[in-house]
Amino acid sequence: MEELGQMENKRIYMDHIAGTPVAPEVVEAMEPFLREYFGNPASIHHDGEEPQEALFKSREQVARLVGAEPEEIIFTSCGTESNNLAIKGTAFHRMKEKRHIVVSAVEHYSVLYSAKALERFGFEVTEIPVDSYGQVNPGDVKKALREDTALVSIMHANNEVGTIQPLKEIAYYTKEKGIPFHSDAVASVGRIPVDVRDLGVDLFSFAASQFGGPKGTGALYCKKGVQLWPLFHGGGQEDGRRTGTENVAGIVGMGKAAELALQNLPHRMATCKHLEDLLRKGIADHVDQIKFNGHPEEHIPGLVNVSIRFVEGEALLLHMDLRGISVAGASACMSITAKASHVLEAMGALGGEALGTLLFTLGEENTEEEVQQAVDTLSHVVTMLRAMSPLYKRA
Amino acid sequence: MEELGQMENKRIYMDHIAGTPVAPEVVEAMEPFLREYFGNPASIHHDGEEPQEALFKSREQVARLVGAEPEEIIFTSCGTESNNLAIKGTAFHRMKEKRHIVVSAVEHYSVLYSAKALERFGFEVTEIPVDSYGQVNPGDVKKALREDTALVSIMHANNEVGTIQPLKEIAYYTKEKGIPFHSDAVASVGRIPVDVRDLGVDLFSFAASQFGGPKGTGALYCKKGVQLWPLFHGGGQEDGRRTGTENVAGIVGMGKAAELALQNLPHRMATCKHLEDLLRKGIADHVDQIKFNGHPEEHIPGLVNVSIRFVEGEALLLHMDLRGISVAGASACMSITAKASHVLEAMGALGGEALGTLLFTLGEENTEEEVQQAVDTLSHVVTMLRAMSPLYKRA
Repeated sequence: MEELGQMENKRIYMDHIAGTPVAPEVVEAMEPFLREYFGNPASIHHDGEEPQEALFKSREQVARLVGAEPEEIIFTSCGTESNNLAIKGTAFHRMKEKRHIVVSAVEHYSVLYSAKALERFGFEVTEIPVDSYGQVNPGDVKKALREDTALVSIMHANNEVGTIQPLKEIAYYTKEKGIPFHSDAVASVGRIPVDVRDLGVDLFSFAASQFGGPKGTGALYCKKGVQLWPLFHGGGQEDGRRTGTENVAGIVGMGKAAELALQNLPHRMATCKHLEDLLRKGIADHVDQIKFNGHPEEHIPGLVNVSIRFVEGEALLLHMDLRGISVAGASACMSITAKASHVLEAMGALGGEALGTLLFTLGEENTEEEVQQAVDTLSHVVTMLRAMSPLYKRA
Repeated sequence: MEELGQMENKRIYMDHIAGTPVAPEVVEAMEPFLREYFGNPASIHHDGEEPQEALFKSREQVARLVGAEPEEIIFTSCGTESNNLAIKGTAFHRMKEKRHIVVSAVEHYSVLYSAKALERFGFEVTEIPVDSYGQVNPGDVKKALREDTALVSIMHANNEVGTIQPLKEIAYYTKEKGIPFHSDAVASVGRIPVDVRDLGVDLFSFAASQFGGPKGTGALYCKKGVQLWPLFHGGGQEDGRRTGTENVAGIVGMGKAAELALQNLPHRMATCKHLEDLLRKGIADHVDQIKFNGHPEEHIPGLVNVSIRFVEGEALLLHMDLRGISVAGASACMSITAKASHVLEAMGALGGEALGTLLFTLGEENTEEEVQQAVDTLSHVVTMLRAMSPLYKRA
């Protein structure tokens, strides 16, 4: 157990998909709006001015990150809200004649469960299957489209395996039929270049905490002309599409984070890709009986999802944690909902025997030394756990 | 215009109903969760621990403020969300057999418009009228209850005129019929003592920015056993009632603000009442042809809503603003929705002739000197505007 003492010096954070550190410049930008500029942007008097200008500036910064016009950005409280607003907002707006929704089988629960929740209102949901890489075939989406399809929702990049979906090709088919196309881009915005015009989407969700911004702020790109039934009715903010007193400090933080993310994107991508390659190679060289999940090329940089035979995922995660490394898991009893990963299941990647899956999502601040340490630790933990495994002894 | 130069030294903020300053102790409590403790509370590894414990602690602090159990507190992003969740969540849960909603005529738009938005789903909305003080008669609520009533929503204190509604008496009738009773308490929590058990409500909305907390965080008290269709479906946070990655820093801020508000309540009430009395007396002594709106006794402390004849509300507000005093208005073209105050209209207080209405909401940090200055400034502005008013000359 000596290694534990040595390794506990500094924690290694490799779970960026759960949330990134907030950049110091972002916190500095936010502070004045938690202190002196506490006014309400809707106030007509002087104390409403700075907050109002700050919202205006943030909206431009956020729009720029995704290639939108500022008025096409709706500020929300998080990615989950953006997804719920996109799905339910579109469905409830069009429900008179359109009661069919198309989603992929690997969507985040905030998309899947929103869609399923609409069954209560007479909606039918079609789930498009994915291949073993977790990718959707645009032809399958085309075939699923009906006269009464209200909305198609296919995520940009998957948050568990990183696989990037062919949105442009899918958009071609949705446009043909005039069906609104939403994409959950919470995992992609800030990690890879995004341009909503180029992608052809009508609705696009993302969240500040994925690119150096604070929790509690998200956004929904809503193309000019696309109508939504608001989840929040009230005082009229966000052009009536998302009313409620704005989280000014949070929105300012998201604006600053968006500006930095855009400037920094090439460097961030290169760094994360380099570290990811080191990690993949390291794991492949030091741990046998493994399988990497997700598309080998078309995935967000920095993400490594690896299934390891003859070990339990939860034990893997806990032992990495004990040794100072924060990673995520993707198997039974790993999440609040205590279910097996529906993503791996849809990819046919779960398998029958003991298979532990870990999800590493690296960030710019990770180092080569940390990657090496993660590889060494993983190798040690796997050896230790397998030594205790009856299945491994028999194999 | 010499007075302008002298008065511009320090602004006087008398619009606390639009949002209160954030207490320094609150910002200090929040900072660590914007910096080092940026982890996701749902993460199983070490970086999820501090955030998770912080949520737990905040939930207890917030519950204590309203006399609830911690598990009865749902964290939201703002008062508008809490109201929308209460109204739509209850309505959608019960909609199979119950399609009638009862609200008062003076509810905040986030309640009124949420209810009206449900007409699309086959709901019928009954608005209970108010008397000239803006108060609801519990007997009128009783009479409006039907076999198919899904929900009753009557605010605790009105955000424009401050009038406190007789919730306990109303709860008696809703309990008789087993109808869920929601109250928008955004204006009351933190200003007057509240105890949800004593009041008898089933759902109770409030927001941090009304009692020294940050914007972007609110709460909904949801009594054990009361079911809601979630506005946000997804990963399971908040027991599935409001999913989405939590705004940890904001929630920590709300917890600290709730703790301070509870401790400080007697002092806050006494200070605000004292300053309010000075302001009322000052206005009555120096400005003629005025009318105070709202219940003379049963209103939240610190609130003064005054209608002044022969001046335009917007001009009043702008001139007060120019002279360094932030107040709110309550007449045409005063809000985003550019409507006359539905509250004053329901109270029969709008009147036919030129009537300008100002809303002062004082806070603990206001002083007697500031109140005096506000009175002097108002008196001066009214005199000036009336000198230009053809109506005044004729009267």
